[in-house]
Amino acid sequence: MPSEANGRILSPYQGVGGFKPSGRHAGPPIKRGADFPGNGDKRTLNLKEALVRAGLKDGMTVSTHHHFRNGDFLAEQLFSAAHELGIKNLTWFPSAVFPCHEPLIRFIEAGTIHHIEGSLNGPLGAYASQGKMPGLGVLRSHGSRYRALQDGDLRVDIAVIAAPSCDPFGNMTGATGPSACGVLGFAVADAQYADHVIAVTDNLVPFPCAPWQISGNLVDQVVVAERIGDPTQIVSGTTQITRSPERLRIAELATQFVKAAGVLRDGWSFQAGAGGTSLAFTVFVADEMRRGGIRAGFVRGGSTAVVVKMLEDGLTPVILDGQTFDLDGVSSVRENPGHVMTSPFNSYNYHGKGNIATMLDVAILGATEVDLNFNANVVSHSDGQLLHGIGGWQDALFSKCTILAVPTFRNRVPIIRDQLTTMCGPGELVDVVVTERGIAINPRRQDLMDAVQGSDLPIRSLEELKAGAEALCGGPGRTVSPNGEPVAVVTWVDGTALDTLYKTS
Amino acid sequence: MPSEANGRILSPYQGVGGFKPSGRHAGPPIKRGADFPGNGDKRTLNLKEALVRAGLKDGMTVSTHHHFRNGDFLAEQLFSAAHELGIKNLTWFPSAVFPCHEPLIRFIEAGTIHHIEGSLNGPLGAYASQGKMPGLGVLRSHGSRYRALQDGDLRVDIAVIAAPSCDPFGNMTGATGPSACGVLGFAVADAQYADHVIAVTDNLVPFPCAPWQISGNLVDQVVVAERIGDPTQIVSGTTQITRSPERLRIAELATQFVKAAGVLRDGWSFQAGAGGTSLAFTVFVADEMRRGGIRAGFVRGGSTAVVVKMLEDGLTPVILDGQTFDLDGVSSVRENPGHVMTSPFNSYNYHGKGNIATMLDVAILGATEVDLNFNANVVSHSDGQLLHGIGGWQDALFSKCTILAVPTFRNRVPIIRDQLTTMCGPGELVDVVVTERGIAINPRRQDLMDAVQGSDLPIRSLEELKAGAEALCGGPGRTVSPNGEPVAVVTWVDGTALDTLYKTS
Repeated sequence: MPSEANGRILSPYQGVGGFKPSGRHAGPPIKRGADFPGNGDKRTLNLKEALVRAGLKDGMTVSTHHHFRNGDFLAEQLFSAAHELGIKNLTWFPSAVFPCHEPLIRFIEAGTIHHIEGSLNGPLGAYASQGKMPGLGVLRSHGSRYRALQDGDLRVDIAVIAAPSCDPFGNMTGATGPSACGVLGFAVADAQYADHVIAVTDNLVPFPCAPWQISGNLVDQVVVAERIGDPTQIVSGTTQITRSPERLRIAELATQFVKAAGVLRDGWSFQAGAGGTSLAFTVFVADEMRRGGIRAGFVRGGSTAVVVKMLEDGLTPVILDGQTFDLDGVSSVRENPGHVMTSPFNSYNYHGKGNIATMLDVAILGATEVDLNFNANVVSHSDGQLLHGIGGWQDALFSKCTILAVPTFRNRVPIIRDQLTTMCGPGELVDVVVTERGIAINPRRQDLMDAVQGSDLPIRSLEELKAGAEALCGGPGRTVSPNGEPVAVVTWVDGTALDTLYKTS
Repeated sequence: MPSEANGRILSPYQGVGGFKPSGRHAGPPIKRGADFPGNGDKRTLNLKEALVRAGLKDGMTVSTHHHFRNGDFLAEQLFSAAHELGIKNLTWFPSAVFPCHEPLIRFIEAGTIHHIEGSLNGPLGAYASQGKMPGLGVLRSHGSRYRALQDGDLRVDIAVIAAPSCDPFGNMTGATGPSACGVLGFAVADAQYADHVIAVTDNLVPFPCAPWQISGNLVDQVVVAERIGDPTQIVSGTTQITRSPERLRIAELATQFVKAAGVLRDGWSFQAGAGGTSLAFTVFVADEMRRGGIRAGFVRGGSTAVVVKMLEDGLTPVILDGQTFDLDGVSSVRENPGHVMTSPFNSYNYHGKGNIATMLDVAILGATEVDLNFNANVVSHSDGQLLHGIGGWQDALFSKCTILAVPTFRNRVPIIRDQLTTMCGPGELVDVVVTERGIAINPRRQDLMDAVQGSDLPIRSLEELKAGAEALCGGPGRTVSPNGEPVAVVTWVDGTALDTLYKTS
């Protein structure tokens, strides 16, 4: 493990609950109302001018957010402006990157961006894995990104927030406007903790933009831009229900498991991911609930048409939404009082006074690899390339019953392995692995074992599932030797360093 | 001026906008979700037990809030428990006190409470003025109370928040429940900045209590009590429309003034206080708006039946509510999406990135005294006794047109004087003084002078109004000599020390 990343000391991982933080929350600079326009109009002509007024300098840290997912236009506008200003060596601290950000590689090449701290996936992940990014990638979960700002692990000099509706004072919401994208929760931490906050909107509304998700009192400047994002692209990526028979089988088995284990009961709660298998699971459990007359206590979003339907049908009184995954989610969060906006502060912050994730009866998650101790990988495949973001994956592991819903192999590479390529989640937090060929229950959860005893579920050991996949694939996948140049560090929810990714070519 | 108060240095007042803060926001201790129940149930048996678990010790600072105004039961319960635990020398940091708190004097006498930092009025104000409180009173406006916690001027060790509805995790709202009292905005600062936060509710609801005004992620413990307050008492005190012919005349003149000055126009905004004259003003301007087909841009609460009616009649699209003054306000904030909850962070924080107060076209405020430079007093009468809280008075002075609506004399004591008994607000922020005998416009506001030129409004100088009152009352009121023992300090919105109150007997 590297002992430092981009000039900051890395504490090594100390086990789940091992690290004890000290000190107090970070705070942004104290400002004065007298230094802002008395009429509340904080508009600046354009983003470049706003960056100048914010005091953008070489080496600063700037942040953006992924509410538009693959439809984000703002990061491009931000770094174009910084590039035109001749600024160098910025740290980009996005809440996530998407394939749409591939063109930003040119700003790394040009020296405008020094490195990206945040989940790296797709083309930017591949770029980093090739060792081309000057700084080290530091991967944090959504909750840990909030925590890092709260704890002062790093400081954002300038946060640039895409605001689908915004008034001249900076009150903003993602629920309305031509670019409405839903919840803006990922920007909440930056609004609270960044030294300077710029809202960029393509839908300026009269004061007050109410209800707001982010208060204008947290905003230094407002910029009106032509277009900040394409909300039709928030459905890109992972938000389609799977058509794969294997994955439908996995979702079906996961559904039967939660039913047989007695977890699917009146008042239960679950987190619905946006992955194809998770979505299918949501459809199936909703059917079970309809059939059984079962109502949830609450459902956690990522919100999709599927969970919106659950809310509308009375299967849950509330969606606690952290991220809006489709346009049904957007209109629901705008119109349905039971569709509540949250942020990683509410859902995931590990250095808080509890969070929603630990209250969930079930979280359904994916994984790229699982080892025989239920440890799991979610950021790389067995070739060691950094291809997926952590998202809220680590945070959601803390649910009462965490189910990894995974195929036993992908592209003839077995998923269950002796050793992970990259360690992302400790096995003690993984309760169940559901595959198309059977269900493995973590031996630490004897209660779950007992609960499904006598059912006709295909309960297997991880060893059995591994052997089955290897028989089909002709042996285990190859192992990448951990050597060479580190390109990124995976941190744990408490900020300690969990594992390293190395240069792959 | 005392150079320190209760062990903290007092910076002297440096004029409006003179003091420039430095440094960063304070922050509460970093905590760990692992130290809270994973199922989100933070309930503790009772308040005494919660105080023990919070580590209550001699000399700590504890806070309560005045959402129930004269119907608060919680402060009594808090200090009874502290007294039973044998705790001494607490600083009580309320957002305001009311006559219902008179019985708490016994806890000062017993040494449980050392002193009160907060607006002192009624029986507790009289008690402090008699020099009986061991520590110095430090009076802050609502905005400055938020600012003081934000800036770290002082730290609350344990905040105790009355929550009309609360779930076991601590998500809370004042909009629902048998004790629903409306907005909980005054507790927002404490929830954000106190070292330890206890929610006390008499209406425990299942998780999630959504929408919440204060997030359970800010709460350490939840206590279920039999009764936290009497919401019928929130209408106590100042929330009745005046029947006095003089005050109705003042409200009528103020209305004619804003009309003649062109301030009452489409898109305008105003702050509606709960005082009898302010309420009458609101009724009169609402009538003017109906007649003229005028719609406000927004209205600031304190919300009352009168402003609720404006919202329901479409005279304003939104109420930005900081404090709910009657039960119509409570049901409106629960049911009307245009009735938006705010906190002093939004409305008043002087060390923020602007606030709502400066955006208001008009604020109608009271005063106990005004001098010939438009400086004003709001905390004492001319006998020097500390009888009224500052509330949001200083904060609201920053509106674009601040109108003091005052009679020229009370109990045969003229209000307009050569010298204030206590300086609370700089005259440069007071634009107009409206009395039953005429309207004085601050000479700094030539624009307002020009605007009403040619109207038949009784425009007078403060000197003329003063002379008229003195003729009726048989001379000016007597002046209290500032000597003897300081009992309290009035601070300005930036935290500097503005004036001193002295022992009166």
